[in-house]
Amino acid sequence: MRGFWSRALRRPWLMAACLALPLAQGCAPVRGVGDMGVVIERASGSVEVVETTGQTVLSRVEGLGDLSHASLVYSRDGRFGFVFGRDGGLSKVDLLTGQLVGRVMQSGNSIGGAISQDGKLVAVANYQPGGVRVFDAETLRQVADIPAIGADGRSSKVVGIEDSTDGCFVFSLFDSDEIWVADLKVPAKPVVTKFTGIGSKPYDALISPDGRYYIAGLFGEDGFALLDLWNLDAGVKRVLPDYGRGEKRTAVYKMPHLEGWGMTEDLVFLPAMGRHEVLIVERAGWREVGRVPVVGQPVFVMAQPDGRRIWVNFAHPDNGHLQVIDVPSRKVVKSLQPGPAVMHMEFTPRGEHVWVSVRDGDRVEVYDTATFERISTLPATKPSGIFFTSRAHKIGL
Amino acid sequence: MRGFWSRALRRPWLMAACLALPLAQGCAPVRGVGDMGVVIERASGSVEVVETTGQTVLSRVEGLGDLSHASLVYSRDGRFGFVFGRDGGLSKVDLLTGQLVGRVMQSGNSIGGAISQDGKLVAVANYQPGGVRVFDAETLRQVADIPAIGADGRSSKVVGIEDSTDGCFVFSLFDSDEIWVADLKVPAKPVVTKFTGIGSKPYDALISPDGRYYIAGLFGEDGFALLDLWNLDAGVKRVLPDYGRGEKRTAVYKMPHLEGWGMTEDLVFLPAMGRHEVLIVERAGWREVGRVPVVGQPVFVMAQPDGRRIWVNFAHPDNGHLQVIDVPSRKVVKSLQPGPAVMHMEFTPRGEHVWVSVRDGDRVEVYDTATFERISTLPATKPSGIFFTSRAHKIGL
Repeated sequence: MRGFWSRALRRPWLMAACLALPLAQGCAPVRGVGDMGVVIERASGSVEVVETTGQTVLSRVEGLGDLSHASLVYSRDGRFGFVFGRDGGLSKVDLLTGQLVGRVMQSGNSIGGAISQDGKLVAVANYQPGGVRVFDAETLRQVADIPAIGADGRSSKVVGIEDSTDGCFVFSLFDSDEIWVADLKVPAKPVVTKFTGIGSKPYDALISPDGRYYIAGLFGEDGFALLDLWNLDAGVKRVLPDYGRGEKRTAVYKMPHLEGWGMTEDLVFLPAMGRHEVLIVERAGWREVGRVPVVGQPVFVMAQPDGRRIWVNFAHPDNGHLQVIDVPSRKVVKSLQPGPAVMHMEFTPRGEHVWVSVRDGDRVEVYDTATFERISTLPATKPSGIFFTSRAHKIGL
Repeated sequence: MRGFWSRALRRPWLMAACLALPLAQGCAPVRGVGDMGVVIERASGSVEVVETTGQTVLSRVEGLGDLSHASLVYSRDGRFGFVFGRDGGLSKVDLLTGQLVGRVMQSGNSIGGAISQDGKLVAVANYQPGGVRVFDAETLRQVADIPAIGADGRSSKVVGIEDSTDGCFVFSLFDSDEIWVADLKVPAKPVVTKFTGIGSKPYDALISPDGRYYIAGLFGEDGFALLDLWNLDAGVKRVLPDYGRGEKRTAVYKMPHLEGWGMTEDLVFLPAMGRHEVLIVERAGWREVGRVPVVGQPVFVMAQPDGRRIWVNFAHPDNGHLQVIDVPSRKVVKSLQPGPAVMHMEFTPRGEHVWVSVRDGDRVEVYDTATFERISTLPATKPSGIFFTSRAHKIGL
């Protein structure tokens, strides 16, 4: 870059190109995206672009359709967010210019998506018509269509889609009780490995941070289905067989989010189904080792990046609360009431702050994770999910 | 951003500001920094700015002094790299404009630095005159000076500086056998907790990815010094007491880099001192559970982000080799010869590729971690360390 301007001054076309650049880019600021993020505004089909250094809103992007159950993944450079809307819309947002740069209505009803390890493919899991559609991350051109015809010959809703390593996506067929591993190294020719009879009605899933273990929650019976992606020959196993046992399913106001499990070095903290408890499970062996009583039915149970504390939000009617569990003592050490309808939490990448969306308060609150003090409040219209760009660098997020 | 230009057209000053912007910014491209990185060119005092999506060199930045043993940390937005030179120089590089935007000669001889959890402070550990100096990350103005006067009353070289959580840095005093934890929540008034008699001559250190365990290597005796930062009252303990035992220290051509330890979910892979072996240690209990024979004395022993394979480079005269250990089978599954003097490896954030610096080949090689195929070669002048911006989001990196 040294001597650039002296060269440019001798070349009028170069000078002109430089002056024209901001026009083409919508006068976007030159800035790092590493401290940026997106807040979903669920009721208005819009998102806020935010930054976590000064805790401010940078722009608002509209026209994203039905975001009542939306999620988001990032391009590998952290500049673009791919938003999966409930209406089957796939929207591509440029965080730097604050613009909607691509949008396809790829199905009638969708529950989430994932981005490939190399960042080239975005895959969307569909309720209606079912199946998985795969898009080029650059252009949003469709490159593959994987109908989810189960062993029973019928088309199934697809849920719990996760990216793994070596070009694979993993997802579950709700209606036919299957888990599929799709190898998309050659996108036009997906190679699918199918596991049948994995348990009744898988409804959501998560993948361990190393991309090795895929874990599906079961709506139709107790326990979880676990697949070790390093050892597909071993097949799907059942773990935590007592999970959910004896509960009336009708008492569950909201299904717990599996992606909200809190994984620390040795333990997993997860929401008990329909109970006012957080379960503690050993990662080695998937054995329950304890329970922590909390104020309501947990929804998200999230570990700070340092694994020292677990933050929990709750289903209605306790959704104005937020509780913090200390990992070494396994006790609630702080109870907060951020406001009406706490929907989601997101930690800054190194964990010094946590951002909390307060839907019915139309605001996002920022807390210091060491002191529990509220340090900022940002306006947002019916905020739900919060997604920071550090997710771009993590398997399964 | 919608309607921005229509507003701008009605406000000439806004239009002018937008057109002037690229001038002030050196005509920097608007792009995400999430797929960018820096390659140290050790002999020429320069760095290359690179990107990992297309695998290209974007710019070269010169004037960084002696980079013969350089390291780097990133600002929390991923835009700026802070380069710690051997000559005590602290340089701030803007990856987007490709310019050196700040530089201070902060000591006579330095071995490394760290950035605080909140990104506000950059701390440098010094050999000469010893001690730690702390700088404002924005301006490079000095905000604190922590002389390292040991219990013996003399000034010590400082090594192994790491950032932890809650505003702390941790470092070791080589000459007085101490580990200090400096709380810099109020930067002008550091609160230092000192641990003395921790073992003879700590020469380097690492911190676990959750910021909890600080582990110093000892030059003067066998084993490692371990400090649990969640439980300072327990003090410093000795672990792996047989590490190094029975070796002639003069046989060690190059001290192994502790930051190059490969940490997987349950295991730590680390270089054996002076032996052609990689040690396997259980994280729970710090007990050695196996050894893997390799082609030379290991220098960096690094785990892929998915923890499935470990990549190892070697000291002279075996430094043309690179070996890959499969974690489940604990065996070498691939041997590569990238070229003369392999200095460092860096994985892309989700681990699909690994970048390898080949110093005496004046090039960087990029390999696919699944197939081991070489997919790109980039020119670089005597490259050593490679640092991608995803480090901005990780405790201790």
